[in-house]
Amino acid sequence: MVKRYLDLISLERALGILREEFGGATGRTVQVPLGEAAGRITAAPIFARFSVPAIHISAMDGIAVRSAETKGASETRPVTITDAVRVNTGNIVPSEYDAVVMIEDVWIGEGSYTVRKAVTPWQHVRPVGEDIGESEMILPSLHQIRPHELGALAAYGVTGVEVLALSAGIIPTGSELVPIGTRPGPGQAVESNTLMAAAHLRALGVDVRRNAIVPDEPDLIRAAIEEGIRENEILIISAGSSAGTRDYTASIIAERGEVLVHGVGIKPAKPVIIGRIDGKPVIGLPGYPLAALTVLREIITPLVALYGFPVPEAQTVEATLTTTLHSDIGTDEFVLLSVGRIGEDWVAVPQSRGAGVQMSAVRANAVMTIPASREGAEAGDTVQARLMVPRRQAREAVLITGSHDPCIDRLADLVRPGGVEIHPTHVGSMGGLLTLKKGQCHAAPMHLLAPDGEYNTPFLRKYLPDTDLVLVCVAEREQGLISREGASFDDLTTMTYANRQKGSGTRLLLDHLLQERGIQPAAVRGYDREFTTHLAVALAVRSGEADCGMGVYSAAQALGLHFAPVATERYELVMRADALDDPRMAAILDAIRSERFSEILEGMGGYRTAETGGMRVLP
Amino acid sequence: MVKRYLDLISLERALGILREEFGGATGRTVQVPLGEAAGRITAAPIFARFSVPAIHISAMDGIAVRSAETKGASETRPVTITDAVRVNTGNIVPSEYDAVVMIEDVWIGEGSYTVRKAVTPWQHVRPVGEDIGESEMILPSLHQIRPHELGALAAYGVTGVEVLALSAGIIPTGSELVPIGTRPGPGQAVESNTLMAAAHLRALGVDVRRNAIVPDEPDLIRAAIEEGIRENEILIISAGSSAGTRDYTASIIAERGEVLVHGVGIKPAKPVIIGRIDGKPVIGLPGYPLAALTVLREIITPLVALYGFPVPEAQTVEATLTTTLHSDIGTDEFVLLSVGRIGEDWVAVPQSRGAGVQMSAVRANAVMTIPASREGAEAGDTVQARLMVPRRQAREAVLITGSHDPCIDRLADLVRPGGVEIHPTHVGSMGGLLTLKKGQCHAAPMHLLAPDGEYNTPFLRKYLPDTDLVLVCVAEREQGLISREGASFDDLTTMTYANRQKGSGTRLLLDHLLQERGIQPAAVRGYDREFTTHLAVALAVRSGEADCGMGVYSAAQALGLHFAPVATERYELVMRADALDDPRMAAILDAIRSERFSEILEGMGGYRTAETGGMRVLP
Repeated sequence: MVKRYLDLISLERALGILREEFGGATGRTVQVPLGEAAGRITAAPIFARFSVPAIHISAMDGIAVRSAETKGASETRPVTITDAVRVNTGNIVPSEYDAVVMIEDVWIGEGSYTVRKAVTPWQHVRPVGEDIGESEMILPSLHQIRPHELGALAAYGVTGVEVLALSAGIIPTGSELVPIGTRPGPGQAVESNTLMAAAHLRALGVDVRRNAIVPDEPDLIRAAIEEGIRENEILIISAGSSAGTRDYTASIIAERGEVLVHGVGIKPAKPVIIGRIDGKPVIGLPGYPLAALTVLREIITPLVALYGFPVPEAQTVEATLTTTLHSDIGTDEFVLLSVGRIGEDWVAVPQSRGAGVQMSAVRANAVMTIPASREGAEAGDTVQARLMVPRRQAREAVLITGSHDPCIDRLADLVRPGGVEIHPTHVGSMGGLLTLKKGQCHAAPMHLLAPDGEYNTPFLRKYLPDTDLVLVCVAEREQGLISREGASFDDLTTMTYANRQKGSGTRLLLDHLLQERGIQPAAVRGYDREFTTHLAVALAVRSGEADCGMGVYSAAQALGLHFAPVATERYELVMRADALDDPRMAAILDAIRSERFSEILEGMGGYRTAETGGMRVLP
Repeated sequence: MVKRYLDLISLERALGILREEFGGATGRTVQVPLGEAAGRITAAPIFARFSVPAIHISAMDGIAVRSAETKGASETRPVTITDAVRVNTGNIVPSEYDAVVMIEDVWIGEGSYTVRKAVTPWQHVRPVGEDIGESEMILPSLHQIRPHELGALAAYGVTGVEVLALSAGIIPTGSELVPIGTRPGPGQAVESNTLMAAAHLRALGVDVRRNAIVPDEPDLIRAAIEEGIRENEILIISAGSSAGTRDYTASIIAERGEVLVHGVGIKPAKPVIIGRIDGKPVIGLPGYPLAALTVLREIITPLVALYGFPVPEAQTVEATLTTTLHSDIGTDEFVLLSVGRIGEDWVAVPQSRGAGVQMSAVRANAVMTIPASREGAEAGDTVQARLMVPRRQAREAVLITGSHDPCIDRLADLVRPGGVEIHPTHVGSMGGLLTLKKGQCHAAPMHLLAPDGEYNTPFLRKYLPDTDLVLVCVAEREQGLISREGASFDDLTTMTYANRQKGSGTRLLLDHLLQERGIQPAAVRGYDREFTTHLAVALAVRSGEADCGMGVYSAAQALGLHFAPVATERYELVMRADALDDPRMAAILDAIRSERFSEILEGMGGYRTAETGGMRVLP
């Protein structure tokens, strides 16, 4: 039995250890020219080098006067004076004068000035030091410099600023890794986690030194760690933190310093390491991308904050969870979400929880925690969703849940210039229908074939009998048999088939076709192995795992596979009738009906667009 | 009569014109390497170059098996198999196997594997394309790339991204300007507005080309505009937008293109210009720093958004205004604020409204609008404060309102590492007392001398008779006569005096001393000219405007002036007793009592620290 993560501790305790061990830590300070100081953190208070204004100046375009000489002047009883001087805004007010008359209140004649408004002493004069006095403090230390403050600092004679600096070294390890730009061979993967870590740290204001990939050889890892610790205040080692046969990270940290924590009760990211070498923190990142992201967000971000760097505050919304989630007691589980507002309420749709599914984090706009004390969260629970995008952007999210088709992604692209952000979730046609019934999505794309040959409406009449609905035809879509070298539906029982999940329209279509032909499901090899998207079916066919599967033309075409049309189905976007009042849904409808969308569908192939944009209403 | 801004239009109309004229405008697109793509905006959808995983791989450390052979295996009835292979997470699952048993559920023997848990087909296997399929859309266009998405893009074979780019040229004009690093002579100023504009635009993601300073010579301005329009999509001309004798900006834009707007009903920033040359927007920034900042925030930021760049969303809080503000009908006036939370309520303290007082924007953490339809806002009104800092930071603001002393700035610096952000507002001792009475500051520093020689308590007993108060001595502070070459209080009536404003402790002290000596205020030349800070008094003395004035030692010392002690006063920070429950106030109290603070006071000079940190309570 190989060792597992011994001494698993809670996230709270791990963060306590970080504070205890590194709470007094400081980065470096560097002098930067003023022009590069925006967003940086002052390392010391900044004082004015000179007063502004340095001398009395005019606050207006006008004439500098002795105020006493303007006494009583008015529109109806102007006063003419001879001793005055023309000044523009910012000009010196000569010491013999004590006020400025605005240009619109003066008639300038030959050697005389007719003043139509009296001024009081020092009126329209900016006195010396009005803005700031020499030696006054402009900014305290540990202040994040805002862009407009550069102007003030420059005006007060400051030319450079001493700011906090923090350098993190990042070492990618793993013999299976290939650098970006290389197509990974079988069993290889692109080294992408440290690119993510580098960008994450840079966004917090940290300088990053990223090592080349180090293979799983202890001596090479040792050498990289030695250099990384010498050159940086924080060291991050990517992967090798688990307990596999080639996971050396923890033992090398222990050789050279100490392992403070190995294993934290969080999911994903259990095998994280917190260590220390030469007094500096060393973090071992797990290899799974979403686990690495979790450590960046939950552990490395608070670590950076200990060095005085401000970290962004996550905005939170209370949202209704759409799906029941199970989780382990003793583990804080982080679940990525797509949240959106439906009417006045926020809805949270969980993304796939596989730690290897990086697209979950691309699709997600929020994250929730199932605390260690709970076994999960129930559909309908109110959860705290921490936003991963600005709140305004989350408010614009349109949740489209149901059957997947690549044209929905293209539709999402088409409505982006209007500020609409489509969040598709792939749960199959029937899943979409049930989500729509619960009011937990804005619209559901579906292609449900009823025994009478009618699409969608029979199902909607049955499941949402009293609801005013609108069905918008996205396209009439060809479904066909996808195979490597051409296969006919008649040969189905002689091949291995890649099936779709229960509740998907394509599965229903297969069942319909099998019944028509009197074929038993049990006679179809692979009937029970479920794939959740058209592309997954096509990929299974291309890889040889299956001989054929049913799917749309675009999936076959994308992977260079053969496509034999079997049926044409009505792929419709279904929403409640009042949803059309929402300008975002109206924009989506406009996009579906646009010439550009028909062109895109025709370019993709496998769609008939005669019905595209056509609308049906229920009941 | 010179021309004024003709055709003054509303801000709303000006923004409408921007949308109408430049709504279809596009910047450029550029290809950036993936490592530099975080924060950039996609110019086109991005598709996966290959599937991930490319082949079935193990999701766990364990052994790859034929699932059927593990049937029935359990802890109590393990099953021994011989055909299996050891796999680590991420390793290929060879095609003869269809599942992985986790390493903790296996005993590995010599040529045999004892399995203690049955697995179902494809369990612990990550199927080909589980994360993404080749050709699937990863991101739509006009998406701001988040740091973690770089990891996904790299993993899916993307090495570079086509992103939006927008270039703004900025031309500083003005013969009175000197570059940063030069001490301005009389009537000169450091060219600081374009530094601010550059940082503001860069923070929005815009590339900036900043011209050298162009003097007020039409031919030179013409040449700079010509080059700026050629090289950029947006051109900003700083200053010269007003109607002074040397304001050429509008006429040169009109020569070469057209002036769409000259003058918008906003304050500060009325003389803004919106023009167009060769189809590109040209904005004329007013010269006053806060006016320029207003145009950057209210006009240039929305202009940049038209090009597809996301602009930060201002968070808003509802706050109680502490001071009545008057404004002009027909003008949207923007007032900078210090906001903070007192108990459960937000309070908004207006900053100085002079367009030349750049420190207002340094001190402010929010801004409010007095709409054109209103003549002002009343103290006690609920106003919408748009935050200029993250909400969390604004929540930490401690409003300290009253008498100003430079040691309060140093105290502010001292508490920064604990996350406490002091916002001092200088309204004099009596102003502070009244603000405290209204519950609109956290604490008020004061030094109010009563006729009986007692400091502060007689005033507090009178104005806040039934309130539990705590008075913390910041220091015993020397007040003295500040002069250029040494002056005695006995010679007061032979000199010009720089007085402080009514309600300030120093004014009260002067009045007390005059009365003691039987001198009439009218006998003091300059008694009616008011300065609002110690440093302003010292600056007036140094400039020769006054011969002497009363102030603290640090002000005299900072400007190299003579200081003749006149009195020692108790400078106390007064707060409600329950304020000490607030950890921020407790941190400020700790800082006042720290050795470091006494060292700072002694270093500054003019303070006695024996009483520093001493606490009195009322009633």
